[in-house]
Amino acid sequence: MKKHYLLTPGPTPIPPEVALKEALPIIHHRTNEFAVIFKDVAEGLKYLFQTKNDVFMTSSSGTGTMESAVVNLLSAGDEVIVASSGNFGDRWAKICQVYGVTVHNANAPWGKPVSASEIEKILKTNPKVKAVYTTFTETSTGVVNDIKAIGEIVSKTDAIMVVDAISGLVGQEFHMDDWKVDVTVSGSQKGFMLAPGLAFVALSDKAWKVTETSKLPKFYFDYKKYKKSLLTSETPFTPPVTLIVALQEAIRMLKEKGIENVWADCRLLAKASREGMKAIGLEIFAESPCDVVTSAKVPEEIGGKIVKILREKYGVSIAGGQGDLKGKIIRFAHMGYIGKADILVGFACLEMVLCELGYKLEKGKSVAAVQEVLLNN
Amino acid sequence: MKKHYLLTPGPTPIPPEVALKEALPIIHHRTNEFAVIFKDVAEGLKYLFQTKNDVFMTSSSGTGTMESAVVNLLSAGDEVIVASSGNFGDRWAKICQVYGVTVHNANAPWGKPVSASEIEKILKTNPKVKAVYTTFTETSTGVVNDIKAIGEIVSKTDAIMVVDAISGLVGQEFHMDDWKVDVTVSGSQKGFMLAPGLAFVALSDKAWKVTETSKLPKFYFDYKKYKKSLLTSETPFTPPVTLIVALQEAIRMLKEKGIENVWADCRLLAKASREGMKAIGLEIFAESPCDVVTSAKVPEEIGGKIVKILREKYGVSIAGGQGDLKGKIIRFAHMGYIGKADILVGFACLEMVLCELGYKLEKGKSVAAVQEVLLNN
Repeated sequence: MKKHYLLTPGPTPIPPEVALKEALPIIHHRTNEFAVIFKDVAEGLKYLFQTKNDVFMTSSSGTGTMESAVVNLLSAGDEVIVASSGNFGDRWAKICQVYGVTVHNANAPWGKPVSASEIEKILKTNPKVKAVYTTFTETSTGVVNDIKAIGEIVSKTDAIMVVDAISGLVGQEFHMDDWKVDVTVSGSQKGFMLAPGLAFVALSDKAWKVTETSKLPKFYFDYKKYKKSLLTSETPFTPPVTLIVALQEAIRMLKEKGIENVWADCRLLAKASREGMKAIGLEIFAESPCDVVTSAKVPEEIGGKIVKILREKYGVSIAGGQGDLKGKIIRFAHMGYIGKADILVGFACLEMVLCELGYKLEKGKSVAAVQEVLLNN
Repeated sequence: MKKHYLLTPGPTPIPPEVALKEALPIIHHRTNEFAVIFKDVAEGLKYLFQTKNDVFMTSSSGTGTMESAVVNLLSAGDEVIVASSGNFGDRWAKICQVYGVTVHNANAPWGKPVSASEIEKILKTNPKVKAVYTTFTETSTGVVNDIKAIGEIVSKTDAIMVVDAISGLVGQEFHMDDWKVDVTVSGSQKGFMLAPGLAFVALSDKAWKVTETSKLPKFYFDYKKYKKSLLTSETPFTPPVTLIVALQEAIRMLKEKGIENVWADCRLLAKASREGMKAIGLEIFAESPCDVVTSAKVPEEIGGKIVKILREKYGVSIAGGQGDLKGKIIRFAHMGYIGKADILVGFACLEMVLCELGYKLEKGKSVAAVQEVLLNN
């Protein structure tokens, strides 16, 4: 009987219209019927990525596509730059190291964005760098990186720019082509309003050229196999059919709303969430806060308990900190199918949990701050 | 308005009870609620695999787990035996070659089972062989291989035995432990009655020891990460939550029926399907036919048209041949949620399509042959 409110940065809530599509009788993937859906989805993804490049799908979590963007582009011994300021940025470096790729770090402290000029400096002194790997919105800290500025710099070199946009895409404004991003990877369970299990990747022509010289071993994630599938609508392996069918509906809804409006809503919810946090004395953790997840510092003596109590007493799921930030921050997501009322629920219940934990606050104050932003924008 | 009947060897039909679970509001994977489901599913999988070993799940298609069973067990330059007699057996060799593994072929012609004594011979003359890769039921031809006999031979050596049981598991009788299988991989969209996107793998202690010396690069499919998750119920990456929730229901249904009854039903449908084919003059293609898919030869002049017309006119999806067998065979699946009435529909409609294509047959004869088997068993 427990009612759930999901304010986590993935999985995010799934609209009932989309969930019911997932439950429809399954169709076979080697049929005209599926090919029609597949083509429609492939076109819709281009719109969401803001790209003219083909976008293809893999049956995996987001990390699987991140690995695909290493093994399809590089060879052992290659040099890359990883610009990280959080848990997911660090994952790029871990994957590269597994494959014998030399990593130049352009890291920023967790909570701050990475520095485009630092990347520029490393590129200048290391002309052999083949690719720059970074993160659009760093889910672990709530920071957005300036992909446009980094893209501008990388595009003037022979290196390609690879962006993990798993949590940021279809939430925060993103233009793959205009921002000169060469490889964008993303996943289904965030802004796409879908269940996890489907991941996306798009490559520029410059990136496709780089794949030709890559010698790292790959089979399941071999881009050549997927590229071929876009021409024939025949996926190389059995695709997650029900997720793709549901994605068609999610894309229909997103197109109907318009991607600019999706971005604007997310931006508004982010602003409201920041004001809500500040109104009850919780400092925003991220220096350059993103639009898809808001992180705020919480007192260490109660930090480890908030997420658990909020979920158990009120059915409200938010996220805590990862790694060194465990117990030190809380994170409210506001991407995908999370709406204004969800954010109000989140803050109203958060206040009650904080009261229970002995934290001093004026009841209703964060809710009022959220209302203020929502009413005046 | 078109009504679909899925008789394809994956995806197979999904019971409505399972499909509706997939559509339930999604829960977060880092919660006690999910941990309870995760543990229950992990236990249920042991029953379906007939093993005491842990079974863990990856977010991928079956091919992804096949690759995982190469990169986690081997190092470049290692020697293995691949015993193949079809498209999916050949995939083991292709994956091994990508990773610089030397393959000794113990292949049989398509349509025949692989030879245990041939494997024994190669093992004797190549004592450095680290693993034997083979296929339980070869979906492309409808053959079942004698895994028990091969397991007996391999278990006497230092090599490990790796079985692709993607289409065979939870359909054809299989005993991972009793048959001395070291690594079993499978996928969700066949006997498990689930949508594609979830894959399974189980390792014996002997196989876990082999993973310790493996040097092939891996990150997303690294077994160590998944092994840890079984202790903590914390998956290494965002799992396909909706599929796992649905799997719990599928396992509940399978347990209620009893795995022996699932095997017996599949066996009966296979026998009925073979008699149906023979009754209208279609020769069974597989020498050692499996219980999950029945393949029969069709005249080459009409072979390429049957599958298409059957689907378009009657909504009945069956499979044709792959590779060299394209247009030469048809394949009826009878695993998972495919029942007696589905097989009758399949044959009744197949007869009409064959009539339309000018093939000579006595109407109702294959249906009668199927009925005969179903009534007398």
